[in-house]
This record gives sequence, structure tokens and C-alpha cells, in this order.
Amino acid sequence: MIILIHVSGAWLSCVLIVVVIKLLYSLIPFISSETSWTLTNLTFNISHFVMFHWLQGTPIDNNQGAYDGLTVWEQIDDGVQFTATRKFLMAVPIGLFLLSTHYTHYDVLQFAINFCSLVIVLIAKLPSMHEVRVMLYVIGLGLGDEKDITVKGLEAVKSSSRIYLEAYTSILTIGKEKLEEYYGKEVVIADREMVESESDVILADADKVDVSFLVVGDPYGATTHTDLVIRARELNIPVKVIHNASIMNAIGACGLQLYNFGQTISIVFFTETWRPDSFYDRVKENHQIGLHTLCLLDIKVKEQSIENMARGRLIYEPPRYMTVNEAVEQLLEIEEKRDEGICKPDSLAIGCARIGTDTQKIVAGTLEELVNVDFGGPLHSLVLIGSRMHEMEAEFVKEYAYNLDTFNAIVKRDYVH
Amino acid sequence: MIILIHVSGAWLSCVLIVVVIKLLYSLIPFISSETSWTLTNLTFNISHFVMFHWLQGTPIDNNQGAYDGLTVWEQIDDGVQFTATRKFLMAVPIGLFLLSTHYTHYDVLQFAINFCSLVIVLIAKLPSMHEVRVMLYVIGLGLGDEKDITVKGLEAVKSSSRIYLEAYTSILTIGKEKLEEYYGKEVVIADREMVESESDVILADADKVDVSFLVVGDPYGATTHTDLVIRARELNIPVKVIHNASIMNAIGACGLQLYNFGQTISIVFFTETWRPDSFYDRVKENHQIGLHTLCLLDIKVKEQSIENMARGRLIYEPPRYMTVNEAVEQLLEIEEKRDEGICKPDSLAIGCARIGTDTQKIVAGTLEELVNVDFGGPLHSLVLIGSRMHEMEAEFVKEYAYNLDTFNAIVKRDYVH
Repeated sequence: MIILIHVSGAWLSCVLIVVVIKLLYSLIPFISSETSWTLTNLTFNISHFVMFHWLQGTPIDNNQGAYDGLTVWEQIDDGVQFTATRKFLMAVPIGLFLLSTHYTHYDVLQFAINFCSLVIVLIAKLPSMHEVRVMLYVIGLGLGDEKDITVKGLEAVKSSSRIYLEAYTSILTIGKEKLEEYYGKEVVIADREMVESESDVILADADKVDVSFLVVGDPYGATTHTDLVIRARELNIPVKVIHNASIMNAIGACGLQLYNFGQTISIVFFTETWRPDSFYDRVKENHQIGLHTLCLLDIKVKEQSIENMARGRLIYEPPRYMTVNEAVEQLLEIEEKRDEGICKPDSLAIGCARIGTDTQKIVAGTLEELVNVDFGGPLHSLVLIGSRMHEMEAEFVKEYAYNLDTFNAIVKRDYVH
Repeated sequence: MIILIHVSGAWLSCVLIVVVIKLLYSLIPFISSETSWTLTNLTFNISHFVMFHWLQGTPIDNNQGAYDGLTVWEQIDDGVQFTATRKFLMAVPIGLFLLSTHYTHYDVLQFAINFCSLVIVLIAKLPSMHEVRVMLYVIGLGLGDEKDITVKGLEAVKSSSRIYLEAYTSILTIGKEKLEEYYGKEVVIADREMVESESDVILADADKVDVSFLVVGDPYGATTHTDLVIRARELNIPVKVIHNASIMNAIGACGLQLYNFGQTISIVFFTETWRPDSFYDRVKENHQIGLHTLCLLDIKVKEQSIENMARGRLIYEPPRYMTVNEAVEQLLEIEEKRDEGICKPDSLAIGCARIGTDTQKIVAGTLEELVNVDFGGPLHSLVLIGSRMHEMEAEFVKEYAYNLDTFNAIVKRDYVH
């Protein structure tokens, strides 16, 4: 297709196709001359629409996938508007429309049919429709405030009829109202129940109007967003993910290199009866090969107390966000029990709070030291330093040392060899 | 301080301070009454400026670090403008100025001194100066085009006198010209030599004017940016990092969960004489605990041929970007040599190209299959799937399968248990 429309001789074939369609219809005996013109026009416009404005990519993938997601019309002349090829392709349906109306003797019904099909084909060719799609946008908001959205994300939000904000795997440091004020649009909070069991509400009509689903950090930070994308795919709704920073890469701010991190773990709140320590094994695996471990700390939003749950009352506890101190205490408690030397009181770690925001706070020290450091409001996370720490990493991290002498001494003794 | 200015009775102490300063100057015998008024005004304005507009954070850190990086003026009433406290704090220097000019009998010199110090203090209080700083911005551009910058990043760029684009650890899919057009400003390409050895050129005057240093992806993606931040700190230049998506978190688009990734490796171009395979050990470490491995593929920009280097000619080779195919071939070659079963021809991997852009391409398959898949233009990366792949991950990844039957069979045999 690409090749065909680049060769100017191919313009002729476009005209030939029209002639062939007309001849075929004329050959069918019980079709009047008027009807055959309208049918020719309709057939041409429909197949033209499908070929140029519906199908994406290229029939023969000899262009290395660079055109995936673009219609043939959008690919023409590399997207440059008002070229000779584009003008010709606009002229053909117009000419055919004029011929059809002439030969149907301006019959009102046939004129209406021909005119509508022409308008649809022409609208699809307008420069303002270039790369316009109806779709579900899954947009990362980044880590700070309303201005950490990307320009592309903001444009998508502004084009959307409905906007949802996922609000349980992470939290926004600013309120929903601030977002609404900034976008000039209503934002609906999507809680866990909504995203997990009522995803079809979110996706309703997403094949007819744009819908934005906002996620703090990056869309692929949590499993549930993956679910939403899979569900949209099943419903044949085009999805566009707009990436942003998340704790998984912004944690580089602590001074350790991202490529030296092992698997990431989550530390959940201990309860009286439930004190899971399986993440200790994960930390141990990282520890044994000297890698750093990012610990994501528990968030309890819209959780019910056991009593309320037992009685089926939909009363929720106030939100709780685990602090670095609580996480460290739990780690030390497990270490005491397991005693495998993975997170000892004098192991080095970095406590991080509100990474990526203006009030970001980073303190490096021993676990024992970090128990008492006040990190302020949520969200917190903790990095356990691996023994393979590079000298350059230590150089950066020491800027955040709680006690520089202790830090340097332990680095020299147990880390950086 | 925070406490002081919240208590309305404390307004009185502000006036008292003025009176005390005046009395002290009046006690000094050889100072005329006129001079003592000007000195009082100057002393008050200077100390007022330092206390309210220069020092950041709070003297006593009982607010959990939430005010770090904010001046006391900015902290007042949580940043709300035109409150009673703010109005009072604007009125005091104005009142003092009026008194001083009166008692100095409108002497031109003294008037000028008093007026200038008033203007400086008042300008610092303007709402438009709220959180305005002169600094070095290190700004992530994200992975796609000019619109993947965050709104905050774009504002920083627009406020900057000089803009640098780091262009050797990653590449922008669009040209520098596109950025310049979008920003309406000149962008200077900073190559490796410039960032590593001439960082002071970049940082020159960054304590007087805003300077932006643009990085494809996230600022903490590569070691050299860390260097720049450390150097700026040494020069006492305030640094603000504006995060964005990078391959380290956007790779979640391949369907695998980020927390199941082990350490990240870099695969470099083999040469005739240099075929390093140390990354095989890193992959092995991840492999043994069932984790995925993200492989970043080599970029050769501004590299010299051995001949040109030997002759000291600054002639550079055309840029080269390693393809998924080349990476897979090298991995298979090393596997053949080491034969430890880490990346066998039928090991599963995911080839990714241009992640985060409109032409993103993802194909999952065996290494053998991926050798022949055409992924198109740069940048490419490769993910080696770990044996601990979760069922949900497999569910997502299979959408990208090169051959669904092979993929499912191998997943069932070697992965997801």
C-alpha cells in the first residue's frame, strides 16, 4: 500500500478501481444505472475508508514495525499534510460524488447516501483527525503534585469524557480537588472494589469516547492496572499507556544505582495474629548476591476492622501508611527470630519519604538508627543496602548519612570491597 | 519560628524587635538620630530577609521534615497568600520605611538606602516569587517525544537561561530541533566529554540563572548524571531533579511485574578481540532465584575506530544501536561456550523496541525465535524471563507471543509452577 501510493503512476490505478467497480455493477442486470452509480460510490468509499482510515500498520511488514498503530492515511508522506498524494486522494471521492449525483439525476435519497459517505471519508482525512483515536488512556501521574503529569498525559485528560483516579495502591500528595481544579473536569475516585470487580463501569463506552484512568506513579506499578488493560483488550478497546516516574525508578534519588537492585519486596503491617515474614527470604536472596532491596511499605486504605468485617458493616478504618520506623522495627523483629544476619541492627539502609516531591526526605544509617528518625508524612519506603555497593554509590549516599562516622566505618567494614 | 508567627500575640514582638533595635542604635553616642533610623531600617530588613526569605527549613525540626527546602515566608499559613499574618509582615517594613524617611528628613541618600532595602524585602514577599529558586534542574524527558516531559519539567525549561541535552547514554526518538521548536529556545547537546570533564561549563552561573540539564528517561538512569549532581552540590548550587519514566520502570509494559526483576545488566557489542561475558554471571544469579533480567543494549555514539584512535584523529563512527537480534546472538554464543543452561535456545525472553513511544514493539518467544524477529529502529531492550513467572504475568505476556503454542508449551514445562 505504502509502495503503491508513493508511485505517482499508481494514481491511475485508483481511477481504474472506480471504473472496474462501476463496470461490475453495470453488468448486474436488475440494477438500474442510477443505483449502480450510488453503489459504486458507496463501495468505493467504504473500501477506501477501511483501507485508508481503519486498518493500521502495513500489510507487508517490511518497515520494521515503525507504522504499527498508524492508519495507511496517517502513514502517507510520513504524516506531512496537504501533499500532492493527499490532495489527489481527497479529490477522487469528491469527483466520484459529483459524477454519482449527476447520473442519479439529483434524486434526494441517493444524493443523501452519496453525500453522507463522502462526508465521512473527508472528515477522516482532516489534519485535525491525524492520529486521533477513541481509547482508554492509562496515565501515570508521577510522584509529586498535579504538575508531574506529562504534557501528553494532560492532553489526553483534557480530551476525555470521564476521568478516574486509582486511589488505593498509592496515594497522591495533593487532593482530588486540586486535580479537578487543574483539569477543569470532574475526577472520580476508583477504589479497589471498583477497579477489581466493576472494571466494566470504567470501560463503558470507552470505544466511543475517551476515558482516562489516572494512576499515581507509573501505570505498570501495580498488578491491578494490568488487569484493567487485559480487560480492555478483551473488549477490543484500544489502550494507550502514558508512562511516568514511579518509586521503582525514582528511588535512584537515594544514590544507589538502579541496576544494582534485586527483586522488590512489600512489607505489610503486622497484626496481633498475623506476622508474615516470607519477604525475609526474598531479602535474603538479594543479600546473598550483594544486591540492594527496595521495600515498599504497606498502605491500608478503606480497610475494615475484623469486628466490622465479621458483622458485615461497611465501616472503614482511617487510612494508615507504614512509616520507615515501623518497617525497620518489623524487620528487626524478624531478624531476631530467624537470626540469619540479613537485617541486623547495624545493617545499612536508606529511609526515604515522599520521593519525587518537594519535601522529599532521605536518611541513610543503620537499621537501629533509622528506628528513631522522623520522616514525616507518607509515603515512605526503605532500601536495604546490598554488600556489593559501589564506591561511587557510597559517595553519593553518604550525603544523607544520619551519622557520617558510623556510616563510613560500617561501609568500610561490611560493604564496598 | 513557625510557632511564633502563628500566635497572633507574637505580632507585637515583631514591633518590639524594631523598638529594641532603634533603642540600641540610639544608645551609641556618635550616631546621629537620622543615621540610627536608617541603620534600624537596614538591620531590620536584612535580618528579616535572612530569617524569612533566605534560610530554609525550620530551626527546630519538629514538623517531620515537611518544610525542608521552603523558606519561613513560604511556610506561613501553609503557603496560602494574602492572609492576615502575611499582610502584617508586609506592613511592618513599610511602616518602618515611612518612619525612617520621615525622621531622616527625606535626605536623598538615606531615602535611597531605605527604599532599596524595602523593595528587596517586598519583592521577596510577592506571590509570584513563591517557591522560586535559582537552580540547576535535572529533568527527565521520558521515553517518547517532546510531549513526554512533565508539566513541571516544561515550566523549568521555560525559566532556564541555558538548556543542555545529554545525548550519549540514551537517545531521543525525535531530533534536538523538535525540542528547540517546542521550547522556543536553544538546546545544547552535551556529549560524554562535556558532561564528564567539562561539567563546570554546564554549571557555570547556575547559582545566578536557572540551568536545565535534560536527560532521556529519568535523571537517575545513568551514573554520569549522579556525577553532575554531586559536582553541583560541591559548588553549593541547588539542584532539583524532575523525575520521569525510564526503561527501568516502563519495561513493565512487557507484562512482567517490576518487583520480580533482579539486577539489570548491560550487553555490550562484541568486537573481534573483545567478547566480554561477565554479564552472564549476573543473569545466572537472577536465574537461580527465578527472577527476570532486564538487559540494556549497547549504544555506540561518537565512538572512534581503533585506527583513528591510534592516530589521534577525532573522526567518529556512525552511531550504532544494538538490536534484540544481536543481543540474543551474543547471549547464545556465550551459552554455547559456558553451557550452564542459563540462556538456552529455548529459554523464553521478550524483545522490546521503542518502549513508551507510539511505535513500541514487543515480541515474546524463545531466544531462537527472537533472533529472526525484525524489531525496527532503536532503542531495543531484552528481558530474560525468570522461572518464577506468575500465572498472571504469563497471561499478559502471551499477548505478545511470537508463536502462541510454543510459548504456552514452554511456559508450562519450564516456568509458572
